[in-house]
Amino acid sequence: MTADDHQQRLARARLAYLAEPGDSLLGALLRGHEPAAVLAAITAGQLPASARPLVRHPGTVTRALHRWAARATGLPTERDLDDWLRQGIRLVCPEDPEWPPQLGDLGDGSPRALWVRGPADLRFACLRSVSVVGSRAATPYGTHVATELGAALGERGCAVVSGGAYGIDGCVHRGAVATPSPTVAVLACGVDRPYPLGHSQLFDVIAAQGALVSEWPPGQHPTRHGFLVRNRVIAALTRGTVVVEAGLRSGALSTARHARDLCRPLMAVPGPVTSAASAGCHEIMREWAAVCVTGAADVLDHISPAGEHVAERRRGPARPHDTLDQPAARVLDAIPARGGATPVAIAAAAGVDLDTAIRCLGALAASGFAARGERGWHVRHRPP
Amino acid sequence: MTADDHQQRLARARLAYLAEPGDSLLGALLRGHEPAAVLAAITAGQLPASARPLVRHPGTVTRALHRWAARATGLPTERDLDDWLRQGIRLVCPEDPEWPPQLGDLGDGSPRALWVRGPADLRFACLRSVSVVGSRAATPYGTHVATELGAALGERGCAVVSGGAYGIDGCVHRGAVATPSPTVAVLACGVDRPYPLGHSQLFDVIAAQGALVSEWPPGQHPTRHGFLVRNRVIAALTRGTVVVEAGLRSGALSTARHARDLCRPLMAVPGPVTSAASAGCHEIMREWAAVCVTGAADVLDHISPAGEHVAERRRGPARPHDTLDQPAARVLDAIPARGGATPVAIAAAAGVDLDTAIRCLGALAASGFAARGERGWHVRHRPP
Repeated sequence: MTADDHQQRLARARLAYLAEPGDSLLGALLRGHEPAAVLAAITAGQLPASARPLVRHPGTVTRALHRWAARATGLPTERDLDDWLRQGIRLVCPEDPEWPPQLGDLGDGSPRALWVRGPADLRFACLRSVSVVGSRAATPYGTHVATELGAALGERGCAVVSGGAYGIDGCVHRGAVATPSPTVAVLACGVDRPYPLGHSQLFDVIAAQGALVSEWPPGQHPTRHGFLVRNRVIAALTRGTVVVEAGLRSGALSTARHARDLCRPLMAVPGPVTSAASAGCHEIMREWAAVCVTGAADVLDHISPAGEHVAERRRGPARPHDTLDQPAARVLDAIPARGGATPVAIAAAAGVDLDTAIRCLGALAASGFAARGERGWHVRHRPP
Repeated sequence: MTADDHQQRLARARLAYLAEPGDSLLGALLRGHEPAAVLAAITAGQLPASARPLVRHPGTVTRALHRWAARATGLPTERDLDDWLRQGIRLVCPEDPEWPPQLGDLGDGSPRALWVRGPADLRFACLRSVSVVGSRAATPYGTHVATELGAALGERGCAVVSGGAYGIDGCVHRGAVATPSPTVAVLACGVDRPYPLGHSQLFDVIAAQGALVSEWPPGQHPTRHGFLVRNRVIAALTRGTVVVEAGLRSGALSTARHARDLCRPLMAVPGPVTSAASAGCHEIMREWAAVCVTGAADVLDHISPAGEHVAERRRGPARPHDTLDQPAARVLDAIPARGGATPVAIAAAAGVDLDTAIRCLGALAASGFAARGERGWHVRHRPP
């Protein structure tokens, strides 16, 4: 890595302190200029002339420069980057091989850099990944389904991405960490102090098995707004988003909205219509055409290229009657349960002609459904 | 009514004894000839010459004539029609004002005649009607939802059509009979001996409030095959079909298939993915694009012409924060919960410029979310 590369990475890390993730004005500037140049311009309080055509309203830019400059104290140094590395936290930039290129779908709102903690290679893991999200206020039904889904997706080689929150998110990660596939928690705070505290042990396991990921630099606390901003990364990283349980006000629906806006496959797990915890799932099935999924097979079927993962056709238990063709089934229906009947009477009752009735009676006798006794044809009650 | 009209009606009643409902060959013959002529041809064992172009395979016709002729004993007379009327059973034919013209969508499989018992005018009732069907093996969840849905649709002026079976069907009728709207049970047996016997009292109530309807003449017992044939009438009569609870093998899915094939709106009520009783509902949502409905409002929204019945947009409970615009919400997030902070510090933390922060702090103070104390700005924990 050249000295200039180092400078650009450091500039990206510093910009993460100055501007909120998702700031599209900074994104527009970074589209045309290198991070170090943008950082220098912010420090100088004036944009380079070449940046002006990129922005529509000079007033907006002036206010943004003030806003960003107000945060320009205590910015990280080269040494901080080294310290993070010693703590197992690496900075992943768009120029790095580990950068997931699908984040580019977020346009100017794309992350400037990501801090990653954990053994999983983020780009590789997300090649085949699904985000599974849901409410913090999960029901026993939701936690059961989320855990099963996380485990089943992981077992089928699919990285499972979620937000590390209480409720559904936590269950999804717990289900997935026990599988060979990495699980990825995208946080709205520094990866050195993952939130919520009650999930500390879970985060340690994820950091040992998969990856903790954040746009927020180490040390940052989460804000309410940050969670919503973070959700766009969950949706953009993965090949599809599944909402397991979400009330009408759940933040999980913001992830779903991002998935929809990004044209990523959007799925929802149904639940009882009597449960408010599933109302958001039903709403997005109806309003956003989220696909109804009942398990990992459905999810893989929906996100995979045509023919790669085809969920097996669901069938109820097979019954002996299934093997009968239609006239035979009607003839069988027409044979009396008790006593006996002649082929002529059976043909009339079944509404088939006599030839057909005789042919079917033979077949039914051969397969054990009916027998001819002294009083005529009757049904055998225990077909083989 | 002329003498010929009487003859034609009697012929329709007799044909119902000869051929199974849904027999498309008889339907094709009736398309070109009057019922009495078709009946005479069957009795004579030969089709009129003018009928020949209607049928492709003469062999099929010969076999059908034999099949039908085999049942030509004990056919009803004028007197039987009068007897039925005295029992409150009327024969409704396609020429009658009460005939629901939408049954014509079934083409050659359209019913030849219907026996109706009950005060509801079938055509008028079905102008605004929904069929609600489901498994006999219903769960407490399904029975609850079905009863509520039947009642809520009836209360909103929608006739509720179902099959009178145990389980979901019965609950739907029970919910609907207590409302001012008629409920219609379409049976696969004579309306004088509705099946199942355990629903006798329910059928009496339906016959007093709405209508029992059948293609099968009075006195006929149901057959397994008959239920499936009957289902096409349930789908064709109504403006849409809702499946409440159905396993993968449920006969309710045959009604759903008919609704789909007839291009009638098809809907399903979701349930827990852990319940096999809802697996068929989820399957048709995924495979046949059945719309996910959670109650009567969704159903009416889906079956009504655009703009006539718009389900209210679902919202979770409103929270005081909802009234804040985005910068104000971010500023509120940035105000410390304890102690206090200066506007400059709050602006930097919120990532907004100082002017915006001061403007938002003023608005937050005015609306009671924040206050300025001796140590600076702090959050008020009980906003009004």
